[in-house]
Amino acid sequence: MSLTPLGIIGFRGYSGAELVTLLSRHPHAEPVLLEHRESDDGPGPLGRPGPRRLPCSPESVRSAGLAAVFLATPPDVSMDLTPGLLEAGAKVIDLSGAFRLGTVENYQRWYKESHTQPGLLAEAVYGLPEFCRSRVSAARLISNPGCYPTAANLAIQPLLQAGAIARETGIVCDAKSGVSGAGRKPSLKTSFCEVTENFSAYSILDHRHVPEILRTSGLEEGELSFTAQLIPIDRGILETIYFRTTEQIGSAQDLLAIYQARYGNEPFVRLYAPGQVPDLRAVSHTNYCDLGIKYDARTRRAVVVSVIDNLGKGAAGQAIQNMNLALGFPETAGLL
Amino acid sequence: MSLTPLGIIGFRGYSGAELVTLLSRHPHAEPVLLEHRESDDGPGPLGRPGPRRLPCSPESVRSAGLAAVFLATPPDVSMDLTPGLLEAGAKVIDLSGAFRLGTVENYQRWYKESHTQPGLLAEAVYGLPEFCRSRVSAARLISNPGCYPTAANLAIQPLLQAGAIARETGIVCDAKSGVSGAGRKPSLKTSFCEVTENFSAYSILDHRHVPEILRTSGLEEGELSFTAQLIPIDRGILETIYFRTTEQIGSAQDLLAIYQARYGNEPFVRLYAPGQVPDLRAVSHTNYCDLGIKYDARTRRAVVVSVIDNLGKGAAGQAIQNMNLALGFPETAGLL
Amino acid sequence: MSLTPLGIIGFRGYSGAELVTLLSRHPHAEPVLLEHRESDDGPGPLGRPGPRRLPCSPESVRSAGLAAVFLATPPDVSMDLTPGLLEAGAKVIDLSGAFRLGTVENYQRWYKESHTQPGLLAEAVYGLPEFCRSRVSAARLISNPGCYPTAANLAIQPLLQAGAIARETGIVCDAKSGVSGAGRKPSLKTSFCEVTENFSAYSILDHRHVPEILRTSGLEEGELSFTAQLIPIDRGILETIYFRTTEQIGSAQDLLAIYQARYGNEPFVRLYAPGQVPDLRAVSHTNYCDLGIKYDARTRRAVVVSVIDNLGKGAAGQAIQNMNLALGFPETAGLL
Amino acid sequence: MSLTPLGIIGFRGYSGAELVTLLSRHPHAEPVLLEHRESDDGPGPLGRPGPRRLPCSPESVRSAGLAAVFLATPPDVSMDLTPGLLEAGAKVIDLSGAFRLGTVENYQRWYKESHTQPGLLAEAVYGLPEFCRSRVSAARLISNPGCYPTAANLAIQPLLQAGAIARETGIVCDAKSGVSGAGRKPSLKTSFCEVTENFSAYSILDHRHVPEILRTSGLEEGELSFTAQLIPIDRGILETIYFRTTEQIGSAQDLLAIYQARYGNEPFVRLYAPGQVPDLRAVSHTNYCDLGIKYDARTRRAVVVSVIDNLGKGAAGQAIQNMNLALGFPETAGLL
Repeated sequence: MSLTPLGIIGFRGYSGAELVTLLSRHPHAEPVLLEHRESDDGPGPLGRPGPRRLPCSPESVRSAGLAAVFLATPPDVSMDLTPGLLEAGAKVIDLSGAFRLGTVENYQRWYKESHTQPGLLAEAVYGLPEFCRSRVSAARLISNPGCYPTAANLAIQPLLQAGAIARETGIVCDAKSGVSGAGRKPSLKTSFCEVTENFSAYSILDHRHVPEILRTSGLEEGELSFTAQLIPIDRGILETIYFRTTEQIGSAQDLLAIYQARYGNEPFVRLYAPGQVPDLRAVSHTNYCDLGIKYDARTRRAVVVSVIDNLGKGAAGQAIQNMNLALGFPETAGLL
Repeated sequence: MSLTPLGIIGFRGYSGAELVTLLSRHPHAEPVLLEHRESDDGPGPLGRPGPRRLPCSPESVRSAGLAAVFLATPPDVSMDLTPGLLEAGAKVIDLSGAFRLGTVENYQRWYKESHTQPGLLAEAVYGLPEFCRSRVSAARLISNPGCYPTAANLAIQPLLQAGAIARETGIVCDAKSGVSGAGRKPSLKTSFCEVTENFSAYSILDHRHVPEILRTSGLEEGELSFTAQLIPIDRGILETIYFRTTEQIGSAQDLLAIYQARYGNEPFVRLYAPGQVPDLRAVSHTNYCDLGIKYDARTRRAVVVSVIDNLGKGAAGQAIQNMNLALGFPETAGLL
Repeated sequence: MSLTPLGIIGFRGYSGAELVTLLSRHPHAEPVLLEHRESDDGPGPLGRPGPRRLPCSPESVRSAGLAAVFLATPPDVSMDLTPGLLEAGAKVIDLSGAFRLGTVENYQRWYKESHTQPGLLAEAVYGLPEFCRSRVSAARLISNPGCYPTAANLAIQPLLQAGAIARETGIVCDAKSGVSGAGRKPSLKTSFCEVTENFSAYSILDHRHVPEILRTSGLEEGELSFTAQLIPIDRGILETIYFRTTEQIGSAQDLLAIYQARYGNEPFVRLYAPGQVPDLRAVSHTNYCDLGIKYDARTRRAVVVSVIDNLGKGAAGQAIQNMNLALGFPETAGLL
Repeated sequence: MSLTPLGIIGFRGYSGAELVTLLSRHPHAEPVLLEHRESDDGPGPLGRPGPRRLPCSPESVRSAGLAAVFLATPPDVSMDLTPGLLEAGAKVIDLSGAFRLGTVENYQRWYKESHTQPGLLAEAVYGLPEFCRSRVSAARLISNPGCYPTAANLAIQPLLQAGAIARETGIVCDAKSGVSGAGRKPSLKTSFCEVTENFSAYSILDHRHVPEILRTSGLEEGELSFTAQLIPIDRGILETIYFRTTEQIGSAQDLLAIYQARYGNEPFVRLYAPGQVPDLRAVSHTNYCDLGIKYDARTRRAVVVSVIDNLGKGAAGQAIQNMNLALGFPETAGLL
């Protein structure tokens, strides 16, 4: 069977490189690197050519017949490139924050720059397949969710919809991420000697992923306290989520049942027995989100642990899941 | 000036070894190793003798004139050894949980074994100098606080006492610790390949440090949600503490002012400007507890970041601070 | 196409778990876990059954029709189990050192115990496919090479055979390995706090992999100086190999040409341009061995850097490569 | 007793920051920060002022009466600043490579730029106290040795001088360093995600520390093969040094005896029993160099393991040792 060529822009970043790795194993796809201001390669083995390379342009999309293009680029670059790619006939899966926040006002507030593509912002479909599968399948422009919001929304959405969370006392999402989430551009904050044997919190209560969680979940700003923190590891996210339950919940099993009803058929969400929680490594190098619950019935306090690989379900893996839906491949192709 | 000899039992564990290191630099102390079931030494340099060694016995305490003995041992060993050491005339600083929980019932519930020294349990002084300095100075038996409770209590006590925390919506303490907090005994959970590139939560809502925090702070069990987590680093604790404020608080500065009033003269508690928080490394290899505050006035949500070195202020450093008080040395001797 | 069932004994160790992972993706194989003194499982997701499990016995081999069994067990267990497995009709790929050293005397000297299967020791084929592919294909019992010898022999064998190395001045192989090479059994030496922020040498000049390198390469003991060292990482081996060349070598290109002649068609050996060397991560989670050369023509000093993943080409990956040959699958099946 | 003020230029780099830390504990010194193109501070605790700060100028040296100035700067900055500092009456301890290589030709060859201070190059004293203590004591300008050469020279110098090494078969020095050795300037090569779970060799056979080792040891270029490698840790150097002995050596004890004769009274060189070697952590955060020997008498092959802290004896610690000598303080002041 012939392979469908798919473009990747920003293939040297961590998410972009992960896309190349995953697409190289995909049974229906051929990755094509679209060169856009990339620096030179480092040393590599002789006589082992990698994927095809083309200049980054709408002409490349047309001539190579790229069915879709992944943008692993900063938001401003994504805004610049998307119109041309769409016109050239490719579906676009954007991994940046350019099209996640719904309104130009929201974008301006959190990303500190004007949105240059308000029409596309309105058109873009938020690509969290577990909650908007059919819209993703029909989309021309898919906005791939942020890593923190993916882990958070998969954990809290079913519980909110079922009315299990006592919203008035608030939800705390204490999030921790590996360093690759900060991107590949060198900076003192991600230098080895600054990160190793350290742990630090950043963007406390004002991370730009907060409005993304709020928009998707319907929570009010005052109902969610979110802190991002840096773990001295390469990849992976673990979120520890605290809330109190409404009276309809009497046990961890009740919470689990809500998840099971919602995720029973989901290929990429896995659940643990009450009282057991996944560690970060359970999902390393996978497209899974694993969820575990601890509950104290007497005081109605609940803790949910949600883990994903920030480059997997948190970026490249989910982007491929979205692409599979948009191009009509099996949703799990190349991801199990 | 002659040095005061001080005994250390359990000097091969991480807390015990840290005690040896710190006491070797102490201007008024001479560490003396009391050998109690210790395994053989590994390789070490020739002709560089370490501290004096004696068999672990009350006779050693008497003959060497040890003014105090540090117990870096499991709780059952601490309960066994303490009476003899006290009788031999030494003050005892116990780093285990044996004397922290106040009642035999509480000890039995959380440590799953009977308390064999109820009289000493009643006598023991909880050694958090910032809150019970005079009692520590007069104590014969000091119970050195747990690492997590030290970081938690220093952060929340002044705010609770000032009525700044809206207790009814609960306090969340999301705690993270380096691996040395789990002790030196080999286990799969602390094996390098299981810990590196991983992050995991344990003892969610039911850690044995919870009753210690409750006892000291006066919080009810339902008012505190506490999770312990393992960072792939050697040493250090960072706690991210979430709560809502009462109406008397209008800004981060108001919270800071409470801390400043309480800790203005404390040598080992350091405060950060509003909106700035310490990272774990700020206190690495020190006896400091650093506190930083982030506050959202509109929604009354507050986050406090509290960091200590689990082997410093969380164990050996604080034990020496307590010893300094109990023996009449300057409180900061050997600790700056 | 139906999958061929293959047994794995010792599936909880790091090599065994890697075998399970790799075989689960293999296009022609179904992993079957043979339970042999395994401890209980940790927490795992609900409703996601893993591979089939059977008791570890010759009957299981027969009833399940296992074409081959992988032994990821200590040498004494491998010696015990191999006869029964062979009798039951399975080919055996042993990842221990039980069958690597050729003679019972050599085994006794280096493994400090008697060899209980001298007949099988004589029969076993050393499974380094690049040097004994046809014998592996015909073998009933394959002795999978050690991790260090794999990286060393792939680097030095072609050069020795071509007469490029001045043996009289000796070869230095300075080897470094990730901690998973030490196995999964907890010990102080592989505890996180002992390994992190550390680096240590062990078995200097007398590692049990030395006789394995000598036997395969034909070097004399005095011609090779080998040191093993522990890197604070999970997996991967890098060997820095130093030697002087004979006069027939005048440039790095000459050395590269020898490798190219030998490895031009090898799927799992990759070469770098003169002066460029691979880092350890180049082969992480792969079955590749990457080789790079630095040469100083004026003084005839050469350095070769050889890297493998100790759990890939150094253990499970190579075992599957051997299995592919022995069962008639494409050599690279499941490994690219 | 009043403290002697000492200047530090480049106090934000890793060596400079270590100087500040060590001098703050020094019984006779007061560190003074000389601000030279430094970036802003990060967050720090309130009300805890650090060392005094002055602009970086000869006037500051004079007005503050700085007895010595430490240069933790790149070589070109060191060449620029040294003349003015000397004129202002300070002794200068330069931690860069500016004054290490003896001749302008050698400097030009290895540092790829012209030497602008040939007179000072001729005057500078190479500050390896174990080998040139009296010259250091009298020096006005001290060139602090490189980290790799310190570990290498302390290991091989006594053996070379005693005629114990068979030079004709060469010495291999396989060196590994923590990442802080590469400095604090952000770069992709020292980014966390590139370094963690990796290990890499660089500057194989042509590191700029090679000529420094040759100059001090008297070895010829062809007699030493040196490779530098990056360990994923913060700090520390371990060098594994291979050579064959001359016939005068019959045992590891013979080699140890040479070291003992040479280093018996040295405060900062520690020796291990034959067959035992130090790990890197043995010297972490110290000014020690630890040496261990493994020897195979039958084949005359020797391995010496030499460890230092690259920021201790490899940089800031040794710089203070040199300063102590030059200013007449006890050599070990502030370093034990």
